[in-house]
Amino acid sequence: MFSGTSDYNRIAGLDISRSKAIADGVFAFAVTLLVLGLSVPVSRGIITEHDLWLQLVMIGPELLVYFMSFITLGNFWTGHAVQYTYINKSDRHLTWLSLFFLLFVSLVPFSTTLLSQFITFRLAIAVYWANILLLGLFLLVHWEYAWINDFISATPDRERIKKTVRHRLIITESLYAGAALLCIISTYLSIALLIVIQLYYALAPTFRHQTS
Amino acid sequence: MFSGTSDYNRIAGLDISRSKAIADGVFAFAVTLLVLGLSVPVSRGIITEHDLWLQLVMIGPELLVYFMSFITLGNFWTGHAVQYTYINKSDRHLTWLSLFFLLFVSLVPFSTTLLSQFITFRLAIAVYWANILLLGLFLLVHWEYAWINDFISATPDRERIKKTVRHRLIITESLYAGAALLCIISTYLSIALLIVIQLYYALAPTFRHQTS
Amino acid sequence: MFSGTSDYNRIAGLDISRSKAIADGVFAFAVTLLVLGLSVPVSRGIITEHDLWLQLVMIGPELLVYFMSFITLGNFWTGHAVQYTYINKSDRHLTWLSLFFLLFVSLVPFSTTLLSQFITFRLAIAVYWANILLLGLFLLVHWEYAWINDFISATPDRERIKKTVRHRLIITESLYAGAALLCIISTYLSIALLIVIQLYYALAPTFRHQTS
Amino acid sequence: MFSGTSDYNRIAGLDISRSKAIADGVFAFAVTLLVLGLSVPVSRGIITEHDLWLQLVMIGPELLVYFMSFITLGNFWTGHAVQYTYINKSDRHLTWLSLFFLLFVSLVPFSTTLLSQFITFRLAIAVYWANILLLGLFLLVHWEYAWINDFISATPDRERIKKTVRHRLIITESLYAGAALLCIISTYLSIALLIVIQLYYALAPTFRHQTS
Repeated sequence: MFSGTSDYNRIAGLDISRSKAIADGVFAFAVTLLVLGLSVPVSRGIITEHDLWLQLVMIGPELLVYFMSFITLGNFWTGHAVQYTYINKSDRHLTWLSLFFLLFVSLVPFSTTLLSQFITFRLAIAVYWANILLLGLFLLVHWEYAWINDFISATPDRERIKKTVRHRLIITESLYAGAALLCIISTYLSIALLIVIQLYYALAPTFRHQTS
Repeated sequence: MFSGTSDYNRIAGLDISRSKAIADGVFAFAVTLLVLGLSVPVSRGIITEHDLWLQLVMIGPELLVYFMSFITLGNFWTGHAVQYTYINKSDRHLTWLSLFFLLFVSLVPFSTTLLSQFITFRLAIAVYWANILLLGLFLLVHWEYAWINDFISATPDRERIKKTVRHRLIITESLYAGAALLCIISTYLSIALLIVIQLYYALAPTFRHQTS
Repeated sequence: MFSGTSDYNRIAGLDISRSKAIADGVFAFAVTLLVLGLSVPVSRGIITEHDLWLQLVMIGPELLVYFMSFITLGNFWTGHAVQYTYINKSDRHLTWLSLFFLLFVSLVPFSTTLLSQFITFRLAIAVYWANILLLGLFLLVHWEYAWINDFISATPDRERIKKTVRHRLIITESLYAGAALLCIISTYLSIALLIVIQLYYALAPTFRHQTS
Repeated sequence: MFSGTSDYNRIAGLDISRSKAIADGVFAFAVTLLVLGLSVPVSRGIITEHDLWLQLVMIGPELLVYFMSFITLGNFWTGHAVQYTYINKSDRHLTWLSLFFLLFVSLVPFSTTLLSQFITFRLAIAVYWANILLLGLFLLVHWEYAWINDFISATPDRERIKKTVRHRLIITESLYAGAALLCIISTYLSIALLIVIQLYYALAPTFRHQTS
């Protein structure tokens, strides 16, 4: 049995295209699922345009958290895609590292809804941050594992790419941790900083290009 | 750190196939999610076939809004696909422009449900229209950015294609804006015109082919 | 403007791979969404194993309708895939015919839930059947359109394939119509026959192979 | 008609890429849908951080079942991917075996929610186990059918791969059956053992590599 298990592990998780496909599917779904957390106002009791306006203003914080989570998922999706631009081989372990990463992707709608419902609770920020931390950790281990096992295509700037991806993940997660810690002062401050960090990464201001 | 950031931006968002895959996923999901907005009548209190008939007639407006949103999403999906028929390179910024476009795709089920619940409210039309406007804007910027950065494959009719896609988006969005403005008179008129415009684009009557 | 519109129509809907991708996405989603129609028993009031058993038996009809809809979607997905095995070109109209087909795919979870809630109502059968009819109609028009415009790859048995796909759709829809008509006698009879037809197509008994 | 049916069966289900695509879609969706089973605490009545903590602790068992189901789906997704690494031809029957497998994939969120709601009920374990059993059975029949019909690509270690995949499925399902039987003593024991088995397969400890 055990040698059979070992055999199986040798033939499993070889198809990179499947790993990419399920990742794109989970991300596409998680991103759209976020919207289900947005509560459409119930028509009962809303009579004038002004009533509806007030209701929409009230779901403002939810919209903010939704927006933040979208950017978060976008950043991690880009991160996953970057790695697979260079990964050209795979094994069972790498596939499962990618799957565990997706486990935490699929939890984002949950922690997002939790945060939007309890926007002033530190515990909600902590859960949200733990989710982001685990996303980053699995993506980092995924990269290091691919590297150690020589699954990266041989380009001239291999070493530089290796470090770039690693540093990006470590710096990002450090910034997220800092932002999360600010919840000791105010959860709104935490969320504001999280949004700033994520927007920074999403927009990737071009003046940086000139510096380097 | 900053040179690292710049490095990362240079290797991120290069894989066009991933951008297409997540777009197809988000569209597929958003389109199907629209249906969740359709409220299946509750069995309680429905005894005769006639009762059920009345209930189904009552969700008629919802069905209309659902249908309209499906065509809207179909039009924007076609628009996204057209651009990627010609785009053969990508960078981090283009990828993020596509992601922000998808952000507003994933919001369509929300603004659709809002409109179907508040079909006589101008504010609901305004929110719906803002959603469509942002879809068009991001798709336009996406196209212009790809063009400026020379990400378009070199076909003999490059220039003509460039203008065709641009004009189409501008004309469409102008028509949408006009339809939305009609809500000052009646929201039903707005919706009717929106449906006419979208059907026009979906059906793309063939007599036009003969004119050109 | 109009010549621009015509230009746009000429460059839109050319990418077959996108049409396949969004179709697979909508089907995958619609199929899984069916399950949301299954009501998990609420824990309140269920104390013994026997209570839970009774509750599960009570959702038996829902499970039946779910199973039927899954096979229906499987059959139409296969039908869509068959066509695109042979279609090697596309235009805007073909893409939109495929999208309208997907519109009715995405409505299947709605008409399935309706039927499972009102399993003894002829109107629910009628709505369900109308949905299946429209699925078949759009798939048929899709095929005929592809044929007329010479979008089919040139294989030696072209003519035979053309007729096979066409006849299959016409025969299937005729059988569905017959089964739906049986609801005049009993809706259960209708559903039973629909399941038999769909299972027949899904299993595609091998003794037929020997006959031909 | 019958010869037409037979003709149709010969041209249906030939496109392997579509089978993979719908499988990845269904898995991606089922995995993310699991999260919807997680009940976000309602803000009413939760005033302090401690209240929220208590609520989150209370959904602990749900999280456990969610985690277990994610690993289950991951294992079966890997199993499906392994088979299609070697399958290079397809017919209508193989496609439908894959679809029936997906039917039970899409039922996993249902049986997971059922189990998380009735975690001390043997019947809930039985339903959950029946779901897993049918997943394994269809995957096994799928493999044997592909083998008998010579749909497997000709690699030197064909015979070994054939047995490896078969044995893996039989051993796994035997272990699942054993774990499920433990519910006679305690459902928590069953769930604990199921998690251990699934984690064992997910992690696939590397010391096995050295043994073989």
